[in-house]
Amino acid sequence: RYPRPERGLLSRPGLEEVFAYRRHVDEAVLGLLAADRLPAEAGGLIELGLHHEQQHQELILTDAKHLLSRNPLKPAYQKQWPLTAIRAREPRWIAFEKGLREVGHSGHDFCFDNETPRHRVWLDAFRIASHPVTHGDFIDFIEDGGYRRPELWLSAGWDAVTAGGWEAPLYWERREDGWHLFTLHGEVPVDRNTPVCHVSFFEAEAFARWANARLPTEAEWEVAARDASRAGNFLESGALHPLALRGAPAEGRLAQAFGDVWEWTRSDYGPYPGYRPVAGAVGEYNGKFMCGQYVLRGGSCVTPAAHVRATYRNFFPPQARWQFSGLRLAREA
Amino acid sequence: RYPRPERGLLSRPGLEEVFAYRRHVDEAVLGLLAADRLPAEAGGLIELGLHHEQQHQELILTDAKHLLSRNPLKPAYQKQWPLTAIRAREPRWIAFEKGLREVGHSGHDFCFDNETPRHRVWLDAFRIASHPVTHGDFIDFIEDGGYRRPELWLSAGWDAVTAGGWEAPLYWERREDGWHLFTLHGEVPVDRNTPVCHVSFFEAEAFARWANARLPTEAEWEVAARDASRAGNFLESGALHPLALRGAPAEGRLAQAFGDVWEWTRSDYGPYPGYRPVAGAVGEYNGKFMCGQYVLRGGSCVTPAAHVRATYRNFFPPQARWQFSGLRLAREA
Amino acid sequence: RYPRPERGLLSRPGLEEVFAYRRHVDEAVLGLLAADRLPAEAGGLIELGLHHEQQHQELILTDAKHLLSRNPLKPAYQKQWPLTAIRAREPRWIAFEKGLREVGHSGHDFCFDNETPRHRVWLDAFRIASHPVTHGDFIDFIEDGGYRRPELWLSAGWDAVTAGGWEAPLYWERREDGWHLFTLHGEVPVDRNTPVCHVSFFEAEAFARWANARLPTEAEWEVAARDASRAGNFLESGALHPLALRGAPAEGRLAQAFGDVWEWTRSDYGPYPGYRPVAGAVGEYNGKFMCGQYVLRGGSCVTPAAHVRATYRNFFPPQARWQFSGLRLAREA
Amino acid sequence: RYPRPERGLLSRPGLEEVFAYRRHVDEAVLGLLAADRLPAEAGGLIELGLHHEQQHQELILTDAKHLLSRNPLKPAYQKQWPLTAIRAREPRWIAFEKGLREVGHSGHDFCFDNETPRHRVWLDAFRIASHPVTHGDFIDFIEDGGYRRPELWLSAGWDAVTAGGWEAPLYWERREDGWHLFTLHGEVPVDRNTPVCHVSFFEAEAFARWANARLPTEAEWEVAARDASRAGNFLESGALHPLALRGAPAEGRLAQAFGDVWEWTRSDYGPYPGYRPVAGAVGEYNGKFMCGQYVLRGGSCVTPAAHVRATYRNFFPPQARWQFSGLRLAREA
Repeated sequence: RYPRPERGLLSRPGLEEVFAYRRHVDEAVLGLLAADRLPAEAGGLIELGLHHEQQHQELILTDAKHLLSRNPLKPAYQKQWPLTAIRAREPRWIAFEKGLREVGHSGHDFCFDNETPRHRVWLDAFRIASHPVTHGDFIDFIEDGGYRRPELWLSAGWDAVTAGGWEAPLYWERREDGWHLFTLHGEVPVDRNTPVCHVSFFEAEAFARWANARLPTEAEWEVAARDASRAGNFLESGALHPLALRGAPAEGRLAQAFGDVWEWTRSDYGPYPGYRPVAGAVGEYNGKFMCGQYVLRGGSCVTPAAHVRATYRNFFPPQARWQFSGLRLAREA
Repeated sequence: RYPRPERGLLSRPGLEEVFAYRRHVDEAVLGLLAADRLPAEAGGLIELGLHHEQQHQELILTDAKHLLSRNPLKPAYQKQWPLTAIRAREPRWIAFEKGLREVGHSGHDFCFDNETPRHRVWLDAFRIASHPVTHGDFIDFIEDGGYRRPELWLSAGWDAVTAGGWEAPLYWERREDGWHLFTLHGEVPVDRNTPVCHVSFFEAEAFARWANARLPTEAEWEVAARDASRAGNFLESGALHPLALRGAPAEGRLAQAFGDVWEWTRSDYGPYPGYRPVAGAVGEYNGKFMCGQYVLRGGSCVTPAAHVRATYRNFFPPQARWQFSGLRLAREA
Repeated sequence: RYPRPERGLLSRPGLEEVFAYRRHVDEAVLGLLAADRLPAEAGGLIELGLHHEQQHQELILTDAKHLLSRNPLKPAYQKQWPLTAIRAREPRWIAFEKGLREVGHSGHDFCFDNETPRHRVWLDAFRIASHPVTHGDFIDFIEDGGYRRPELWLSAGWDAVTAGGWEAPLYWERREDGWHLFTLHGEVPVDRNTPVCHVSFFEAEAFARWANARLPTEAEWEVAARDASRAGNFLESGALHPLALRGAPAEGRLAQAFGDVWEWTRSDYGPYPGYRPVAGAVGEYNGKFMCGQYVLRGGSCVTPAAHVRATYRNFFPPQARWQFSGLRLAREA
Repeated sequence: RYPRPERGLLSRPGLEEVFAYRRHVDEAVLGLLAADRLPAEAGGLIELGLHHEQQHQELILTDAKHLLSRNPLKPAYQKQWPLTAIRAREPRWIAFEKGLREVGHSGHDFCFDNETPRHRVWLDAFRIASHPVTHGDFIDFIEDGGYRRPELWLSAGWDAVTAGGWEAPLYWERREDGWHLFTLHGEVPVDRNTPVCHVSFFEAEAFARWANARLPTEAEWEVAARDASRAGNFLESGALHPLALRGAPAEGRLAQAFGDVWEWTRSDYGPYPGYRPVAGAVGEYNGKFMCGQYVLRGGSCVTPAAHVRATYRNFFPPQARWQFSGLRLAREA
């Protein structure tokens, strides 16, 4: 295997060769599928591969954003700004009763193995915010000294603040006329009304403490999001940036649970009770990463809409910031 | 504050000055206590301080062991070997029914804030081993290529194996006549009958996978250990090393749940539902470390006996090996 | 200024835009030159720029070679192999008398400031080899345990061997049928007859000790090379690899002093007596790097022929290996 | 061999055991010497060992100073301050003619192998300052922005300034009433009249550029110091700190060439022409370090007086600052 830190040193074939290779693979696979000559287990593997490919489509956009951000010319991937002029709404708290719940995937639709088995979990009563924390909320946190008060942070989070010189989420720049941030549309002034993104687990957790709240567990999120609308600002909307909340959310339902920003939960990424990875190489896909990462839920503005589910478990290390990652607050009842 | 990596560079007062300072502090505190002149909240602080001191008493022994192990002369802290000649027993599986349980501390005895609040948790039926994994079991794992088979390991665990050149637990040396290990009694041949220790979470987790089992969650451990005997091989026994199981364990009860070795669980160290750190500086004691660490239960052969409880949550990073840390297997029912 | 370690992250314009920009610059400069509208000092700056550009032409080839070498497919930059089938000759020792000599550049031709002022230096009698050390010589060194005997190495050199796991010069691979090396023609079997290249100062210095010789000082090299032929295997030959010695060298003259491989000397790169950097930004060009580097002389098979002189001082850190750097032995008389 | 970075982890015998061991060794060696039972070559080895021991006596003081400086209480090794109240004198330039000179050790007195062979060297005419640069001179450099002007520094030197956050020599602290520095007498106000010390080669080199001068080469220093008085402020004076110049220096002679502070030269530490290390393990003593270090001359206030000579070559890496290292300026004639 080629050492990961040196992958960037690999010289690559030209664009035309890459396209030709892709056409070759597409045609060969489609030919096999059309001829129905594939063994049964190959179908499952191809389906898994397609979902894996969707993950890379998202990563290509977040990686491209990161690359463009390092360029002093701050080039835009597309130009379409301002996206809207909607004003933020005050979030409401939505209450959920205590009780024994079921979480995890069931049924015959595709899911990754880490979403299984469906299992029972006891939840104490809790409240969860009707919509995600906004850029405006985060400016208030910054202006209240959020990045300079160690008592708000996990110890490892404060180490990250200090070592990285963090003073704001990734891609923020303080200019004379206020905070700006780099987007796939180039650098723009911060819009207070949109969900905050590019925060790490550490920043999400510190913000929640500052707000006298906490992050939800992944079980709480899944139970709360069960009845929320699946419609949302996904890759297909073309906005490539989180949008402000349009229209009042239905009473007692979460708004923007799906799309806009991945939402950090307080749950470390571990195996569900009774979890068994698939045998063979495919079994390495998820289980071996169940250590030192935290779960995010709901998908973002660069996730394909068909890719996510209420039971979908995304995961990243607590210091990661280059995904469209935000948060939604929770509290005890 | 003095930078932590440079603390080893601090020149220190002589031993007599240190003892004199300690006498001064002891006498002053005892004077205040005798005169009953302390405000109420100071009592709680002193009690917390005493429990904190017990933690450092344990760390002094594990740190001294590490220091002596780096010395080519392999000096012993004390000499008393062999400790016993007891043979290992086959572990049995002890079954627990599914159901809604309560875990966490209640009542008025001292506990750390991280053991609260007591709360409900749903447990599926599970089985847990009657006693911890032994050095003999771990030799079998090593001889079966345990440290050379990446498929047994978490990804971060395999990184640790590779980066550290791990081929056995900490302090093991392969000699012509078999495995030896460094103990507080100097270097001795490995005794197959005693609980294995100085394994990281990564090694415990890989061993469990190899044994077609898993680590228990901390809730499972606490429920299973509730009726186990609190007597055990603690600091006071003077052995300073885990001992083989003496006498058959009572039917349906865990043996060696307390003392001998800290037992890794599969649970990351996080806040219990409704957890609130104490206000003020003391509140930084536990909560701020709730990230990136795993829970260990039960105390070890260098823990003061009065220090642990069934609800006690110890925690270390997954690569830590210098504590007397071992494991007990669990399985689905 | 953009941080150097992140330069590789910069996204770049497309190839056509790059060519267009280059045409634009070329035309503008040529226009100014044709119109004779440039101030006098600009002429010197343009001349310096052209020589600087020649250095980058060489670096582009050595960097491209390094990049291609990291690619598991080992792609060739050009294919033209074997280059010749000439056999190596035994080197002879050429003797130089002791005496007061002059070194450094004089006259009105272009030179870099670090080649001045011309100055006197006392040289004891010495002998220098008629041609550079060959790949065959270096295989003998390797097979005699050269990379496993610390007593042959400078202390910092042995650290480099250990830290880098060096067992041969850069780009060498041991295959079943002997040593192969990666070249701009792809991977080829080592040709014993050609000058060795891609060795660091450390390897050159250790080889010389093994051979019961030493590296020449830069003053010795310059005095010895003064009468050598300037013709040689430079970039213009198209070989892009050092070649075996063709024809017997003239009696008492160095062969292959120019071209083929840069030759490490034992001299650290420092200021000549009375050296003054040019005032202004151009003065930063050479003087500020006069610390911790060693001087190489003579040019290589990827250096433009018009770029070098007998007084030319190239310099690299002692561990650098990606240039076409070799060595020539010297001895006391 | 025990890995160097872990040496600080070695537990050590108690002080009494150390003294007993030392007595044992002393008595055994003295017994052998008295009985005249040693082979001839052992005598040379013992003499070398004694000179090596003197080097460690100096290092113990510079290491102890460094350790005490890391202690927030800033404890003094001894208290005796102020040392004197002598005012600084203006340095004069002393001129030396061009010519062929001899440097290096000759005769039968002890010397290290790196001081041999004595050899000829051509020197252009030069001037050298009558006494070393003072703390007062260095304050002027600092106040003129010396540490903030990259054009004054070697490239590697500016990297050291930036990475280390250097704003003054080692041990300096800016207080409200001016610069203070930590000495073996505790923290004291800077005395402008004394030779500056604890500067790196980089700082010495930058200071010289700022002063429109340069560092001398080691050959220039040795030629210039040949007729200077060997008396000076060495370890035996007990001052443990450089002292101001007492009495006018003799006309045309260097003052304070020996003692007070080691003086950085512009010469990298390399082999003299014809240098051969002694055969065997002792030969590793000096030659293997001849790379990446710079030569210092003259001894310091913590060097035993009998340890140095005009030909003595000390050497340290260019960033080292914990020795009593200062400088003396030179200029072209």
